[in-house]
This record gives sequence, C-alpha cells and structure tokens, in this order.
Amino acid sequence: MTESNSIAVVLFDQFELLDVFGPLEMFGLLPDHFQLSLVAETGDIVSSAQGPRSVLDYRFDNCPDFDILLVPGGRGTRREVDNPVLLNWLRRQAASARYVTSVCTGSALLARAGLLDGRQATTNKAAFEWVTSQGEQVAWQRRARWVEDDRFFTSSGVSAGMDMALALIAQILDDATAQQVATWAEYGWHRDPEWDPFAEIYRLT
Amino acid sequence: MTESNSIAVVLFDQFELLDVFGPLEMFGLLPDHFQLSLVAETGDIVSSAQGPRSVLDYRFDNCPDFDILLVPGGRGTRREVDNPVLLNWLRRQAASARYVTSVCTGSALLARAGLLDGRQATTNKAAFEWVTSQGEQVAWQRRARWVEDDRFFTSSGVSAGMDMALALIAQILDDATAQQVATWAEYGWHRDPEWDPFAEIYRLT
Repeated sequence: MTESNSIAVVLFDQFELLDVFGPLEMFGLLPDHFQLSLVAETGDIVSSAQGPRSVLDYRFDNCPDFDILLVPGGRGTRREVDNPVLLNWLRRQAASARYVTSVCTGSALLARAGLLDGRQATTNKAAFEWVTSQGEQVAWQRRARWVEDDRFFTSSGVSAGMDMALALIAQILDDATAQQVATWAEYGWHRDPEWDPFAEIYRLT
Repeated sequence: MTESNSIAVVLFDQFELLDVFGPLEMFGLLPDHFQLSLVAETGDIVSSAQGPRSVLDYRFDNCPDFDILLVPGGRGTRREVDNPVLLNWLRRQAASARYVTSVCTGSALLARAGLLDGRQATTNKAAFEWVTSQGEQVAWQRRARWVEDDRFFTSSGVSAGMDMALALIAQILDDATAQQVATWAEYGWHRDPEWDPFAEIYRLT
C-alpha cells in the first residue's frame, strides 16, 4: 500500500477537458499513491478543445519514464494520429510503463502507435467508426464502459474515464480504496465495465 | 437559442479539479451558447489541490462583468473565506450576474459573501458542518444533489457540479439540449436533484 505511481497525461492542442481532469481528480485524491504530471511534445501551455489552458510539467525531451500513461481524446486526436513524434513517444514510454490507458478517442492514438494490435479495446461511441479505422488489428469492443486487457485499460467516451480510473485504483490498491475515492468525489461509480447505454443510443448494438 | 452566456470560474490556489472541469466540459460542448473564462484575484497561473495548473484568462482587476459565476470548492476555500478581496469581487459580480453557482465547498464562499442569506442552498457532504457554519442565515439542505433558489444554483460535492451544470443548461436552453450534452459526454446524468446517496453515507439524514 505504500508504493507510489507516476502518471503522465499526454496533452496536445484541443484535448478534451473531462477526459483529463476526471481521471486526475480520482488519482489526485490519493497523493501518497499517485503523482500527476502533464506532458506534451513541446511548449509550456496547451489549450483544451473547450478553451481552458493547462500548464505543462514536462516536454517529451525532458521527462522521465512514467509508471502509468493516460492518453485523452478530443478533436486534437484527428491531427495527432499523423504525428510520428507523439506516436514514437507513446511506443517508447509504453515499453516500460506498468499501465497504458486511454479515454475516449485517445485509443486512436494508441492504435496508430500499434500498441493495441491483437488486444481488446474500446473507445467513445460517437466517433466509433473513425477510431476503429485507425487500428484494424485491434479487437474493438462495441459495448463496454471500459476494457482491460493485461496492462492496457481503454475507456469509452469522456465521463467513462472516471469509471476506468476507479477500476485501475481498485486493481493497483484495493476495491475499498477505490470506493472511498468515489465517495469523496460524491461520484456514482459505474463499477460494471459492461454498463454502456451509449452503445445503444449510437446504434452500435 | 442564439443567446450567448459568458461564464467566469473563480479560481484560487488549491481549487478542486473536477469542481471546475466537470461543469466546464458540459458548458464547453455548447460553444455557441457559453464562453468560458478562468478568473482569479492575481497572477497568471493557479494550482489545483491535485497539482495540475491552469492559465488564467482574467484577473479581478481587468475582467468584464459575467453572465454566470461558478465558484468551485477545494482545500483553498478554507483560506479564501477570510479573503475580503475575493468576497467583495463575488458580491460585485453577483449583483449583475444572471446566475450565481457553486460546486462543493464553493458555497462557503458565497455564504461568507452574504449572497445566500435567506436562500436554500447545499454543499458537499463530507465538509457539511464546516460549510454550514460559514452562513447561519442560509437554509442549508442536508439531502440534495443540487439546489435551485431563483438565480442561485448550489451543488453537492465535486461530481455533483456536472449534474447542476446540465440542469442549468436545461433551464437556459432546453431539456433536449442538456440531454444531448450528457450523451456527447457519455455521462449518466442524475436528473433528480434529490438523488443523494452521499447524505446517508455521511450520516446527514
């Protein structure tokens, strides 16, 4: 229970706000166990898709290796799937990371980096066709709040990142601690990874 | 449907991440209707309670009047309840704002500014006794996901801000638009303001 895990959230212009700060709220409530860093390719400040801007802790060229990677979605992923610098950084970090995670269309970046080949994964439901076209060797799950495949955790859209983060806390620490975090945040944790009413709304089932 | 609303989120050192970025995700999905600004007393950058830092859009001394105020909670509220500069700014902005809202312990700041006197309001459940001691003339509600009293919307802890934001979108625009935002964010909107299992967990009922 005394281990500490460094988490890097990979930012890029037009990242989705809640994809990032939902999971970071959950991990951040356990500061003895998780240290949070915001990392991007270059610069000091990154703008979200919604406007608010975040200050980076590291750039790709000056950061350490991290225990956990978190790749958010947002409109910027449409550009970043063609960014070899970002994809190479993901491959390099993923090689030594204990867990590799994504929220929403962030899984398109993991897929384009080849990191999900042969694995089960999911993504958000509104952009399901585009994301899945980025990785034809991935066993994409159409109905899932999040998917765990060994050390890869991929979640459905936006809010689903919070449920995935709590599941990862339960795996790394224990279930009671994850439930305590949800209670602190007064969050109605969806504990069932198959809870996914949005798959039906977007006619994926 | 074409009206536009300026939203100011008041930041201070050690604000709670999800109190801010949960509601801003929801409002930010409707950029034709809501313009988001981060505002603080001074400086250029503000640190959250969880660590990640945000870039300010305005300071108190160079900002316009806003249509909607959003006051988050977080550990920093314990200090800011004694900050007359912030309390005076809240009073001045609230005089002309169309809506005044808070998440979590942010209602302690509205209460200390006297803005909730004689009104119904709520706050987070873990810090209920401290917050309510900041406003003895407030009709504090022990069991509520959020409370609406005229133009004042106050929510329970952290995650409750998202439900309150969707309720405000429904009031300003319409219910179908609020539901569309929840679906885009794949968020299981708690539409009932009396949904509050945390009141029981914290033995407030």
